[in-house]
Amino acid sequence: MENKYAIGIDVGGTTTKFGVVNNKGEILVQGRIPSNEHDFIEDFIQELYVKLLPMINEVGGIENIIGIGMGAPNGNIYSGTIEYAPNLKWKGIIPMADLMAKKFGVQAKLTNDANAAAVGEMMYGCTKNMKHFITITLGTGVGSGIVIDGKIVVGHDGFAGELGHTIIRHGGRMHKNTGMRGSLESYASATGVRETAIELLTQFPDKESLLRNYTINELTSQTVFECAMQGDPIANEIFEFTGQILGESLANFIMFSSPEAIVLFGGLTKAGNLLLNPTRQAMEANLLPIFKNKVKLIFSELNESDAAILGASALVW
Amino acid sequence: MENKYAIGIDVGGTTTKFGVVNNKGEILVQGRIPSNEHDFIEDFIQELYVKLLPMINEVGGIENIIGIGMGAPNGNIYSGTIEYAPNLKWKGIIPMADLMAKKFGVQAKLTNDANAAAVGEMMYGCTKNMKHFITITLGTGVGSGIVIDGKIVVGHDGFAGELGHTIIRHGGRMHKNTGMRGSLESYASATGVRETAIELLTQFPDKESLLRNYTINELTSQTVFECAMQGDPIANEIFEFTGQILGESLANFIMFSSPEAIVLFGGLTKAGNLLLNPTRQAMEANLLPIFKNKVKLIFSELNESDAAILGASALVW
Repeated sequence: MENKYAIGIDVGGTTTKFGVVNNKGEILVQGRIPSNEHDFIEDFIQELYVKLLPMINEVGGIENIIGIGMGAPNGNIYSGTIEYAPNLKWKGIIPMADLMAKKFGVQAKLTNDANAAAVGEMMYGCTKNMKHFITITLGTGVGSGIVIDGKIVVGHDGFAGELGHTIIRHGGRMHKNTGMRGSLESYASATGVRETAIELLTQFPDKESLLRNYTINELTSQTVFECAMQGDPIANEIFEFTGQILGESLANFIMFSSPEAIVLFGGLTKAGNLLLNPTRQAMEANLLPIFKNKVKLIFSELNESDAAILGASALVW
Repeated sequence: MENKYAIGIDVGGTTTKFGVVNNKGEILVQGRIPSNEHDFIEDFIQELYVKLLPMINEVGGIENIIGIGMGAPNGNIYSGTIEYAPNLKWKGIIPMADLMAKKFGVQAKLTNDANAAAVGEMMYGCTKNMKHFITITLGTGVGSGIVIDGKIVVGHDGFAGELGHTIIRHGGRMHKNTGMRGSLESYASATGVRETAIELLTQFPDKESLLRNYTINELTSQTVFECAMQGDPIANEIFEFTGQILGESLANFIMFSSPEAIVLFGGLTKAGNLLLNPTRQAMEANLLPIFKNKVKLIFSELNESDAAILGASALVW
């Protein structure tokens, strides 16, 4: 196994990140391409190929690559397919692992992107010594990886762990990609934070807010964070509301699998305590006494894409 | 192990059922006592002892009993304690397994009552060949047992699987024992059905219903079932509503662990299709496409108390 490398690829809702990893779990070189600018999966794979080829040559060519591990939304570890991913452009069932193996001429394995991140966290992150934890990725969407007894929960068909799509507000906000109302993802994602901002600014037209200085396209979770840091009341209310919903959901997940910790990843975690405090408060308030003040709620120490790239690459070792 | 027997005990919210089981999983003799008529746990155990003694003598005395297995709400398999069970009279932490072992002079083990039922189902019921399923007990309360990869999920502290207390209606109905609003148990239990009946009869005072012929104490899930069978519209609406909430919750559980089947137990299942049809409809309507039309929703073939007694007794084999 000396001098051998694996490729880890993390297909996110917006960006696909990839890297060449050695057998110590070090990412030697990495890059990124947009996930949703290719109408056809073949074109996406072609761009990945063009970007990865020089990296592969840097480590001595494809002979030194033992395989490709991928994480993707709705990725299935049993079949190697991406099936009906609501946040990706390619609809239906995409035989991603097979297509990649053919293109690169090495073995390719695929799993759910959030599961890949959870594996990375378990191998190299803050849950190294835990057997029961849940990772929640708060990015464009909301992903999740569930670990019970030291193993990723994949369920009878490989699709377990879609916690972002659980319903937390009956009849609530419509999710544009799934058509479902009130799912966690429709609130506690970057997209959700933006929608909450638009809702609050529209609902209270007379309330002053720094957020009113931005065009509608500029209203992102990042802008909301910046305004909240300057003490803007509406921006702060947005994080309070997001944390409330996230915390309630986490309480439900805890009463399912009673994990030792919940690890938060992804863009929204940049908000730090602005998000963490209301989340923790709502989580504790919605737990049965037997679960209260027991579960660690922490931010990942790993960079999210690193965790996913490492976790994905771990599929082929 | 020949000629040896185990005692299985199922402590429910209302009734405690117990039996002597042989090593083929046959319940040779069984009995029951009320669960909530003893202010002190010692008195409850004393009554259990008085009722079990003749049964134990029937199989040749305590020398032939290899141990006692118990299922109880909030029962913890690691510590053998019942901790803060909202539906039982004994508050705080009850060292049930220790007290039983001392009283009977044999080993005693304790687990969550719903987990005991799930083990019984897995060993002798309709999920004998399944590795991923969830059992939901619709009784006085709502219990749950989760099986992943052929193992009961107990979590890092032994308390996993409290699905009855997950919140499905934000700000919804108050649960008298937990003080929490909108939990599954506050709707989809016998108690919940009774409350829904009272709510609907009060909310629509002019709507005719057979249910108005009963005193408030007679309004039970059983009465509602009987009236629904006679075509009473309010009674039918009660089951529609209960099924809607149960089905939404089941969809959330499926997106967590992607089980092959969900097995329903308990008193409410007597309602048959009156409950099953709206439950299935709401469940399917709230699933992502990848989960739709895949998960079997079935009633247990085992008698609920048999499953729990058998599952509990299996703890000591």
